[in-house]
Amino acid sequence: MENKEDMLEPGMSIATSVAPTAAAHVQLRPLDAGGAVIRTGLLAERQRTNREVTLLHGSEQLEHAGTIQNFRIAAGRETGERRGMVFSDSDVYKWLEAVAWELERQPSAKLERMARELIAVVAAAQEPDGYLNTWCQIVDPSWRWTDLEMGHELYCAGHLIQAGVAFARATGETTLLHVAQRFADLLHQVFGDDADLRTDGHPEIELALVELYRQTGRRRYLELAQMLVARRGQGLFKGGRFQLDYYQDSVPVASTQTIVGHAVRALYLAAGVTDLYAETGAEPLLASALRQWNDLTASKTYLTGGIGSRHFDESIGDPFELPPDRAYCETCAAIASIMWNWRMLLVTGESRFADLLERTLYNGFLAGMSLDGRSFSYTNPLQSRTGKLRHHWDPVACCPPNVMRLLASLHHYLATADGSGIQLHQYAGSRIATALPAAGPIELSIETEYPWQGAVAVEVLAPGDSEWTLSLRIPGWSRRATIDGAAVAPGTYAHLTRRWRRGDRVLLDLDIAPRLTVPNPRIDALRGCVALERGPIVYCVEQCDQSPGADLSDVATDAAGTPVDSGFLEDLGGVPAVTLAGTVSRQEGWAGLEYRDVETAHQPCSTAPAQLRAVPYFTWANRDKGAMRVWIPAPQAQADARHDSAARDTDTSATERGPHDGDH
Amino acid sequence: MENKEDMLEPGMSIATSVAPTAAAHVQLRPLDAGGAVIRTGLLAERQRTNREVTLLHGSEQLEHAGTIQNFRIAAGRETGERRGMVFSDSDVYKWLEAVAWELERQPSAKLERMARELIAVVAAAQEPDGYLNTWCQIVDPSWRWTDLEMGHELYCAGHLIQAGVAFARATGETTLLHVAQRFADLLHQVFGDDADLRTDGHPEIELALVELYRQTGRRRYLELAQMLVARRGQGLFKGGRFQLDYYQDSVPVASTQTIVGHAVRALYLAAGVTDLYAETGAEPLLASALRQWNDLTASKTYLTGGIGSRHFDESIGDPFELPPDRAYCETCAAIASIMWNWRMLLVTGESRFADLLERTLYNGFLAGMSLDGRSFSYTNPLQSRTGKLRHHWDPVACCPPNVMRLLASLHHYLATADGSGIQLHQYAGSRIATALPAAGPIELSIETEYPWQGAVAVEVLAPGDSEWTLSLRIPGWSRRATIDGAAVAPGTYAHLTRRWRRGDRVLLDLDIAPRLTVPNPRIDALRGCVALERGPIVYCVEQCDQSPGADLSDVATDAAGTPVDSGFLEDLGGVPAVTLAGTVSRQEGWAGLEYRDVETAHQPCSTAPAQLRAVPYFTWANRDKGAMRVWIPAPQAQADARHDSAARDTDTSATERGPHDGDH
Repeated sequence: MENKEDMLEPGMSIATSVAPTAAAHVQLRPLDAGGAVIRTGLLAERQRTNREVTLLHGSEQLEHAGTIQNFRIAAGRETGERRGMVFSDSDVYKWLEAVAWELERQPSAKLERMARELIAVVAAAQEPDGYLNTWCQIVDPSWRWTDLEMGHELYCAGHLIQAGVAFARATGETTLLHVAQRFADLLHQVFGDDADLRTDGHPEIELALVELYRQTGRRRYLELAQMLVARRGQGLFKGGRFQLDYYQDSVPVASTQTIVGHAVRALYLAAGVTDLYAETGAEPLLASALRQWNDLTASKTYLTGGIGSRHFDESIGDPFELPPDRAYCETCAAIASIMWNWRMLLVTGESRFADLLERTLYNGFLAGMSLDGRSFSYTNPLQSRTGKLRHHWDPVACCPPNVMRLLASLHHYLATADGSGIQLHQYAGSRIATALPAAGPIELSIETEYPWQGAVAVEVLAPGDSEWTLSLRIPGWSRRATIDGAAVAPGTYAHLTRRWRRGDRVLLDLDIAPRLTVPNPRIDALRGCVALERGPIVYCVEQCDQSPGADLSDVATDAAGTPVDSGFLEDLGGVPAVTLAGTVSRQEGWAGLEYRDVETAHQPCSTAPAQLRAVPYFTWANRDKGAMRVWIPAPQAQADARHDSAARDTDTSATERGPHDGDH
Repeated sequence: MENKEDMLEPGMSIATSVAPTAAAHVQLRPLDAGGAVIRTGLLAERQRTNREVTLLHGSEQLEHAGTIQNFRIAAGRETGERRGMVFSDSDVYKWLEAVAWELERQPSAKLERMARELIAVVAAAQEPDGYLNTWCQIVDPSWRWTDLEMGHELYCAGHLIQAGVAFARATGETTLLHVAQRFADLLHQVFGDDADLRTDGHPEIELALVELYRQTGRRRYLELAQMLVARRGQGLFKGGRFQLDYYQDSVPVASTQTIVGHAVRALYLAAGVTDLYAETGAEPLLASALRQWNDLTASKTYLTGGIGSRHFDESIGDPFELPPDRAYCETCAAIASIMWNWRMLLVTGESRFADLLERTLYNGFLAGMSLDGRSFSYTNPLQSRTGKLRHHWDPVACCPPNVMRLLASLHHYLATADGSGIQLHQYAGSRIATALPAAGPIELSIETEYPWQGAVAVEVLAPGDSEWTLSLRIPGWSRRATIDGAAVAPGTYAHLTRRWRRGDRVLLDLDIAPRLTVPNPRIDALRGCVALERGPIVYCVEQCDQSPGADLSDVATDAAGTPVDSGFLEDLGGVPAVTLAGTVSRQEGWAGLEYRDVETAHQPCSTAPAQLRAVPYFTWANRDKGAMRVWIPAPQAQADARHDSAARDTDTSATERGPHDGDH
């Protein structure tokens, strides 16, 4: 307990995944541990599966893959060769972080025992000087600090720190935190002055160090994070395996105009930069984060919230390069995006960040795990011609335990508080409890079938003893919304300031009806297509749900059509199905041909009506292996867009706007 | 000269790149060396640039990169570390093959001296047992035969053999052939019996061994090629870095239904399999090649003839996965495809193979080198949002010398002969000379501005002394064609059987008018787009040719429009430009948005007419760095296709066809 002076007092309430200091530059503050509990509905079910199935599956797989054994070998408790990827230590740390948040949610003697045993092994593997990395310790001690570009040494340290902080916050148990702190102190010695001016090729350490500062109060960790961020963008990784953009190393963070490179690296870095802004108030960091976010959402984000267009280097592609079939959309990138958007929300208080967090959560993220909680996907494309098989584990196992830690901490993302009240960002059957500075203890009960139904009932269980404001996010996707029957504007927060009484109820009603979505005309890969959404849920068509003969290669729909609810799919956990009228065309004239002269291409094909049955995207690949698509061809959509513009050209007189620019 | 008994007699005429034996199962036979000379036009200019600029540039770059020096080091003539990729020896061999065919075209004391010196170094580097691989010899002698999966050892041997055969055929000089043969004998010792049942991860050795058999008459080389092909498809590379498909190792060749995996590997293998069929008559090999070709052209070939949809593993993608922006289309794959199609043409005599060869030659292949002959592209996408820079050389330098050897041997692909006459497959200002069995010496002069004009005049210079057949390929792309004014059918050969006289002229006229091409509706990435072609040339729009304000992200055209010739582009060597009426839309309502609810998406945008100026695709990226696209959005195209099918549904009575199948 050598750092006891830095520790918070036991029993002192503290926020959870992200815990801004009292002086932090944030608009909103996370609730304290235990302040939110998800009780019913989809998210509760996912948390329960994670606790009861996935965490145990994960532990087995980490043993099976040798990932835990590596620590035993490094600790001298066992002998053998190291197994797994260079960064596999982080898989163990992420699993531990997941267990920590599970123990915050609810005690479990079994999970606590498993974690305690594992933490003891991790602690035993630590070198006397604080170093801890089983690759270096088992495979090659001379490797230390020699491959920052691809070695993931500080990345693994970051996940160790996050796990240590999580245990301290969730359970008060600080063994792992002290292991993390000793390693962080070593990092500060090595990288914290002018001796070694490098940083890690894979960001993650930055946000972890900020959190360690928040947890311990030791400024050295914050300062190290600042230094590491400031070093980036100067060509440190020149001559490396990839281009500088891959490492976010071509432009200093403060000057960055766009978000580029390896998606997970870019997003963890952006989250760390946002944390750094929160604790330092350095405006250039916030401005950079905002520019990157705007760039990301203007041209580089999939409808599912997924990020990353390229398999080759796992990178964010060029603007508008968003192929649905070759989408990379790594599950870890969705998780990193959720982490970043939460931080942006805290810093700005703006609902657009909660909107994107929601989109990513219910689509790009939830798709990363099978419904049974035992298999995972690394990439999450929006179209598959051949179907795909999820894997129970993978040699690159970064995603599964990352899914586990986010599912275990989902309740952290529901609500915040500030001096004047409580903000509800994500809706689930839940309890929210906090204490406001003026009004004192508040408790709310939220009853809802969200995301399947648009009605959200908020009941005040403990009203506080003075006026305060209840803020409700009205998602941007909702065509219309009401609170207690009165219209409110989507895409922002509705604020209800009252002297609340016990038993007061507020009924938010969102328009959950299925709707069609069209892509920006610049997204070439989606030209002439529409997607189907229902509330926050992106839908897809899977081959196994279609009529015989309705090959998903040949279906189309009408952008003017109206999708309708059509029952529930029991084999997918009772989720609502949506049906969309369409057609299936047999292109006999095209058999064996890829391209045709337009003069002869208009040969007849046989077209028949088809009812296209759609399911939530996140439930795909849980039944038959077969084709899937989110974006459905809608021939008239493209022509309509053109027609509209032509009409405008005709209707608009010269007095309304100037003549066309240019010389054409 | 230990193998002199195997060598053909000096002065005996022999075909060039591919030389089927007298017993071979071929419908058509290549001309002998010197039998075709390209004299004028685009291909002549490309050959001249290759000879005068590119080959010398290549020699400099091979020195600069250390690729030649590696041989000097291996020979003990110099000291130092080996530089370059594991397979870089093959770059030298390909350059030597290119020089050989240049010396066939026309003597050059300079090129001959350069080649002689280089061949001496290569010969000096050979081990006493015949082994030759500078990676193994310099870096790690124990590496020999240990990394067949990715080591390219037999691949390099294959290129050595091709270069040796080329020198023997083109110049009669057999030093390099003997080096190659000694290595091939070693390969036969090692892999030619039951001792080592493996093969190389990267095919190439197969077609080279067949050619070595053809050159030397030694059946052991043919038998080794057979063995190596037969071993494939049994999971030899299981546990390798990539999936088995990558190496064409998941299904035995004779059972292969589709063409999969790394594009260059797949295509070199297919070429070798076709050669093996030619010399053995083994029908399962031809059937496999035909199945693979049909699969390739039904759903896996780009409009440019380019092949390979994925950057990740340089592989052919799933059927209809043909993204224009992320097209890989490695230049080497275009070359391999040309090599394969030539072999398929010889074996079958069918014009479809010459059609695809032409498409690939003028588009996917020619794009691989800059107009000045000094820079190259490795990948050849059909869309670029940011422009691309060609490179003067690349650490992976497989493509540049591959371009050189194909340009130097382009004349091999013009014409063939069989017992009854001469077949003209590719048109260029050229002379064709051969001797037919019955008719004796024939000589033809072809005058044409092809591919820029559709008129091809064939004049008989030496008529022979009995009736024979002149066969002219009528390209499938030509909407109509005439020979001496009489209509002939495109997509096959026109056969003219006559007792020819000196001075007889035949005028073939092809419809070279610019035309629009539409994609198969199943190619998702091209939905609602058209491409512009003119004769065999695929066109593209480059940003630098458009009016100010006509951003290529926002242009569209009309599938019912008519592209028109519009002058010549002097800065691109005088190639014809084509103009297409279109529009440019400013999507103000979409600024910052990627997706919108269809209910609110139909906001007006300002649309202005624009004349889109297109240039031959192969000339792109020779001026400004800027956007480029082959496929142009044509909103009505998609809707039209649907309208046609709807009309058909309405018009067609039940007596014409049965009711729709299926239950929808």
